[in-house]
Amino acid sequence: MATIQDVAKLAGLSRTTVSRVINDHPYVAEEKKRLVTKAMEELNYVPNSSAQRLRKQATETIAVYVPRITNPFFSQLVESMENAAAQKGYQLILCQTRYKKKQELFYLELLRTKQVDGLVLTSIENNWDDIKPYLAYGPIVLCNEYSDEAEVPVIHLDQVEGGYIGTKHLISQGYKRIGYCSGNHKSSRVAGDRRIGYLKAMKEAGLPVYPEWYYDSAYSVSDGMRIFSIIESQDNKPDSVFTGSDEVAAGIAKAAKKAGWRVPDDLAIIGFDNQPLAELMDLTTVEQPIDTIGRLAMEKMIEEILSKRPQRRKRTELPLKIIQRSST
Amino acid sequence: MATIQDVAKLAGLSRTTVSRVINDHPYVAEEKKRLVTKAMEELNYVPNSSAQRLRKQATETIAVYVPRITNPFFSQLVESMENAAAQKGYQLILCQTRYKKKQELFYLELLRTKQVDGLVLTSIENNWDDIKPYLAYGPIVLCNEYSDEAEVPVIHLDQVEGGYIGTKHLISQGYKRIGYCSGNHKSSRVAGDRRIGYLKAMKEAGLPVYPEWYYDSAYSVSDGMRIFSIIESQDNKPDSVFTGSDEVAAGIAKAAKKAGWRVPDDLAIIGFDNQPLAELMDLTTVEQPIDTIGRLAMEKMIEEILSKRPQRRKRTELPLKIIQRSST
Repeated sequence: MATIQDVAKLAGLSRTTVSRVINDHPYVAEEKKRLVTKAMEELNYVPNSSAQRLRKQATETIAVYVPRITNPFFSQLVESMENAAAQKGYQLILCQTRYKKKQELFYLELLRTKQVDGLVLTSIENNWDDIKPYLAYGPIVLCNEYSDEAEVPVIHLDQVEGGYIGTKHLISQGYKRIGYCSGNHKSSRVAGDRRIGYLKAMKEAGLPVYPEWYYDSAYSVSDGMRIFSIIESQDNKPDSVFTGSDEVAAGIAKAAKKAGWRVPDDLAIIGFDNQPLAELMDLTTVEQPIDTIGRLAMEKMIEEILSKRPQRRKRTELPLKIIQRSST
Repeated sequence: MATIQDVAKLAGLSRTTVSRVINDHPYVAEEKKRLVTKAMEELNYVPNSSAQRLRKQATETIAVYVPRITNPFFSQLVESMENAAAQKGYQLILCQTRYKKKQELFYLELLRTKQVDGLVLTSIENNWDDIKPYLAYGPIVLCNEYSDEAEVPVIHLDQVEGGYIGTKHLISQGYKRIGYCSGNHKSSRVAGDRRIGYLKAMKEAGLPVYPEWYYDSAYSVSDGMRIFSIIESQDNKPDSVFTGSDEVAAGIAKAAKKAGWRVPDDLAIIGFDNQPLAELMDLTTVEQPIDTIGRLAMEKMIEEILSKRPQRRKRTELPLKIIQRSST
């Protein structure tokens, strides 16, 4: 591959002159410009992007953290972010944290070593105190997951309301023994806030909340199947379950039907997200405007990169709504 | 943010000496190394990655092209690639081509301008002649989609066999009027080969193939629903359909059940991929070993980057198998 030296040699000029032409330096004679451009074309020479980025001190690349890209909620979020970034000439580096603290910290190094201009976190595994020092190296925007300590922009959904309207919906349909599934990350505000909404609705209706109706570590279809087998074995059974995910709800519905239970007569189930899966499985769900939060988060990220101002806390909270189908 | 000049000033040494310490240059006195390291620590100075990459002539970043990340086939493929890349210290830039030629060419510039070390294409929108010139700038590996002209490594599945075993399965269950759904990209070898397998099985069994049983532009759940409404309106109806995707199959099954049809009695449906969706919807499907092809493609990519040899055509073809469920 041709180097800048090759260009200089062919043009019969110094390396410094070639470099000045590439960098649009003023005071370079037109004839020299012409000779350099011609030599570059002949040699098919392309200035190295690392060199250009070094001069610009910008990578035009943004890292996006997701726990797993195969979770349809996160793939839809990343799709909307990629669309918004591409429109402004930015690329996305995809970082899967796999719900692991260590993996999250590993990728934070991308910011410290200036391989990306900024980070969008859709989940948070570490304490904010461990993430905060990285703000010295570039902006961070939170999207979906949030933290009260984080002095950065946050685009998220009103999860207290999500837990509340989902539970209220079940209560309005006549259910009284309402179980609760949660991803149960201790650090997750999303899970914590939804639980607050659930407890609020239960308290308002004067309904009992039993510890055995709290099903944790619920993320996937297979988790939903596992939760159904717990419900099946319980003496004190719920008549309905609030889940934090359409995948979990689909797993419960699938296992329940396989065991000969009628949904919703024997067990009502409410999902979360309104993924295509929810429509296919006829699941009532709490719809999240995923495309909107993805786009807003990416636009905010690029704004933060370009402004170069210190970051400030700014919370953008979007509403949720119930989509009723046959599972409740 | 601290610069190399700041470090030099605080250490009381020249910029050249600081640069030598950063780059592990030999013949730097231990005392000078100590002073520079101390100054770097005090100033919280981090050498710029663009500068380091410029020296190494490597970005340790690989671009992965997918049509859409929300298609579960591609999100699973990207997940397995990201795992394999992270294990070897590489990052992935996610490029969504959205089935558009122009978008694909736009991202090819990442290679030309040395923003990535290599490209993995999981789909191909342009003619190979338009992609080929970019091989001058770095390696390309094809994964899933393939092209006979491409003189690069290809990791793919035996799609002729996929179309053949899927169709043979329907024939073995007694179906005789077998429809066919396809993504119908003219440039897609995947779609073309599956069709060859279908036609081969139909011919062997002496079954008729009517043009009205060919349903094209089938990619998503909603395409499946649209295709069912075509089938419903046809005088000459198929008794079963081969689809190229679990999402299309799920859409057909959903719409058929909604219209009061029994699956498989009124219409048998076979999917492709064996996504979680297929299990949830009880769809018979042709399983693709997605994680394996993703991992193999990424390992091959990194091998190509490190070897720096000219690329050669090398085809790795993996087998497929039928997973039978209640839709056939």
